[in-house]
Amino acid sequence: MAVNLQIPSESDIFPVAGVEIGVTEAGIRKANRRDLTVFKLAEGTSVAGVFTRNRFRAAPVQVCEAHLAAGGPIRALVVNTGNANAGTGAEGLQKAQDTCAALGKLLGVPAEQVLPFSTGVILEPLPLDRLTAALPDALARLGANEWFNAAHGIMTTDTLPKIHSRQVQIGGRTITITGISKGAGMIRPNMATMLSFLATDAGIAQPLLRTLATDLANRSFNRITVDGDTSTNDSFIIAATGQSGLNITSPSDPHYADLRDALGAAALDLAQKIVRDAEGATKFITVRVEQAHNAEEALKVAYSVAHSPLVKTAFFASDPNLGRILCAIGYAGVDDLDVSRLRLWLDDVLVARDGGRNPDYQEADGQRVMKQAEIEVRVALGRGQAAETVYTCDFSHEYVSINADYRS
Amino acid sequence: MAVNLQIPSESDIFPVAGVEIGVTEAGIRKANRRDLTVFKLAEGTSVAGVFTRNRFRAAPVQVCEAHLAAGGPIRALVVNTGNANAGTGAEGLQKAQDTCAALGKLLGVPAEQVLPFSTGVILEPLPLDRLTAALPDALARLGANEWFNAAHGIMTTDTLPKIHSRQVQIGGRTITITGISKGAGMIRPNMATMLSFLATDAGIAQPLLRTLATDLANRSFNRITVDGDTSTNDSFIIAATGQSGLNITSPSDPHYADLRDALGAAALDLAQKIVRDAEGATKFITVRVEQAHNAEEALKVAYSVAHSPLVKTAFFASDPNLGRILCAIGYAGVDDLDVSRLRLWLDDVLVARDGGRNPDYQEADGQRVMKQAEIEVRVALGRGQAAETVYTCDFSHEYVSINADYRS
Repeated sequence: MAVNLQIPSESDIFPVAGVEIGVTEAGIRKANRRDLTVFKLAEGTSVAGVFTRNRFRAAPVQVCEAHLAAGGPIRALVVNTGNANAGTGAEGLQKAQDTCAALGKLLGVPAEQVLPFSTGVILEPLPLDRLTAALPDALARLGANEWFNAAHGIMTTDTLPKIHSRQVQIGGRTITITGISKGAGMIRPNMATMLSFLATDAGIAQPLLRTLATDLANRSFNRITVDGDTSTNDSFIIAATGQSGLNITSPSDPHYADLRDALGAAALDLAQKIVRDAEGATKFITVRVEQAHNAEEALKVAYSVAHSPLVKTAFFASDPNLGRILCAIGYAGVDDLDVSRLRLWLDDVLVARDGGRNPDYQEADGQRVMKQAEIEVRVALGRGQAAETVYTCDFSHEYVSINADYRS
Repeated sequence: MAVNLQIPSESDIFPVAGVEIGVTEAGIRKANRRDLTVFKLAEGTSVAGVFTRNRFRAAPVQVCEAHLAAGGPIRALVVNTGNANAGTGAEGLQKAQDTCAALGKLLGVPAEQVLPFSTGVILEPLPLDRLTAALPDALARLGANEWFNAAHGIMTTDTLPKIHSRQVQIGGRTITITGISKGAGMIRPNMATMLSFLATDAGIAQPLLRTLATDLANRSFNRITVDGDTSTNDSFIIAATGQSGLNITSPSDPHYADLRDALGAAALDLAQKIVRDAEGATKFITVRVEQAHNAEEALKVAYSVAHSPLVKTAFFASDPNLGRILCAIGYAGVDDLDVSRLRLWLDDVLVARDGGRNPDYQEADGQRVMKQAEIEVRVALGRGQAAETVYTCDFSHEYVSINADYRS
């Protein structure tokens, strides 16, 4: 029941020169399921990542951070589903390192040039033997046109694959940007159990790519929420192979803004696709908070609305029970909020002003908007100039069903 | 489907000398429903209250605060369900004042001696005419033995009335403590849509009662959460009539501790009853966080667990998917949390230590506890001496059904 999630046909997915992908079945948790994906990156590729801030950072997240911090090249990524290798202590850390070593050995690169990713159940030992036993088959399947399979290979409770692929003209060159994402619950990236891998054949110097990765994440994956649960495994990786011939080393490069915008659009699309396919989602909700004192305050109010189970169930019911939105704004923690200055819109319908219902508001107008599959909640706080937007979904029976049955 | 909610039989409810109650049907939102309750308090009664900190404080909350701040006696309370009179601006405020004036006129006391309370739908105009038209009938029904009817009269989505009544011996006197509460969703009191009215025939001097009210709320109503939604209308009122002959004017009074403990037990029971009857609840969950650096940190972790939709759906499913609890602890915002020092118990079962699963943990042990109707999650952070406890429930299909249909 994903909400307006567009899936490109396989023929519309552009391979990224310098990136090969192999997907196979390792039987990590269940048999007959593509659950192991390897990305092989050409020499000269820059790689940067942004990871969860959950204190229970999964073992693979810790290894990714260590390998990226070492500053050497990154030549491969290995992703398993079915097990998060999180809450697994020292043994889990060793297994994540062993995974890198096993793949590195097969590829002829040091373990430190491999990044591991896991998603699935927390607190259970990773079946390392099954994972490493399947690596040769994943490598045997390496190919440039495997993005569609990879998007399937990283799915857990996702109902649809999430792929963004686009070519743009920058500096007289055709630049390819292709990426995938997954994540359906435990989603409030900071980062959130989301994984996203974005690649371009543009070249971006390593220090610049690091800054850019954080910047992109903060305007995409770090602005979505399904259930407020920031996962232990969230990872966003961007790889720039440089094989298009366009190479950018500084933000003052005249082509940097175009490339950043194209990558930003890709990251936002991949992030929104996670919300569109969120567990049980029937509505795609944009919460925009304007006229805040600062960005932090705007986000506080936006997340308060986006996380309220009462607001989310009202969206599910298409019920314009909009007092629930005011209530969520009221408890967001803005202690000196003057509610008489606040205005609330549902799409173009002004619902509340002067501390109460807009006298011109008609229930029929609210009802009309609430029935839509995509809805914008807009709040003007009347306190300043900052604005922030977060993306979320409604809260349905299906969410409860999925999460009450996930391990069964 | 309330969880182990005990309801005293009518004959076990002790009236409180100095308190008379009248309950009637005003047709506020629906016909044939007891939705209007009046408490008449004898001369000499001390009254104190604790109210929501939501910035969209409902009109009646604003009026309560003003009337209590004025410092004069309080002689009556008037409570309606079916409409929260919240998000109703200046007009709503006037209606709350007019309600007090109307009841005051009938009782021969100034409007400032009446406290108004409303609970129900937000953002809709209060039908003041229907409310005031029903006041004479409520007064005609005034009686000392109406607590059971009052507990029904203040219910909204509650499935059962919530009543605590007890007599204790203090200083050679029999002291009566009787109270009621309501609230089933939009519950994270700070204060939360909960209302509670607690009365005793002990006398407690006004300034002391004010401090005591906050103290009691912080250890009861401010420690429960259903959905994290702090309502616009939460109110807890305590009235001490003094008619037992016991009168306490200072915390150093030798009988103060006994009375405070008895009132504390009453407040905690009334708060827990709200959780037991929370919307859709099938489990009663106690989350205790120990060895925290300070109380704030302990509460942060406890609420993070108590609010996680993933944790709550796992409880609903009786599924020991306990990694979700670690995950929620990890994103609670304790930035320097050392997960290797943390221990997690489910009742007496040690689930996690040393940053991972306890090697002795058996899934069967977790499963056994998860099937219980009452479960304690205990977390030791290994950081200090502070401990806090919050009470919550699971998250079921029924919660979604109730909140998707509430206004319909």
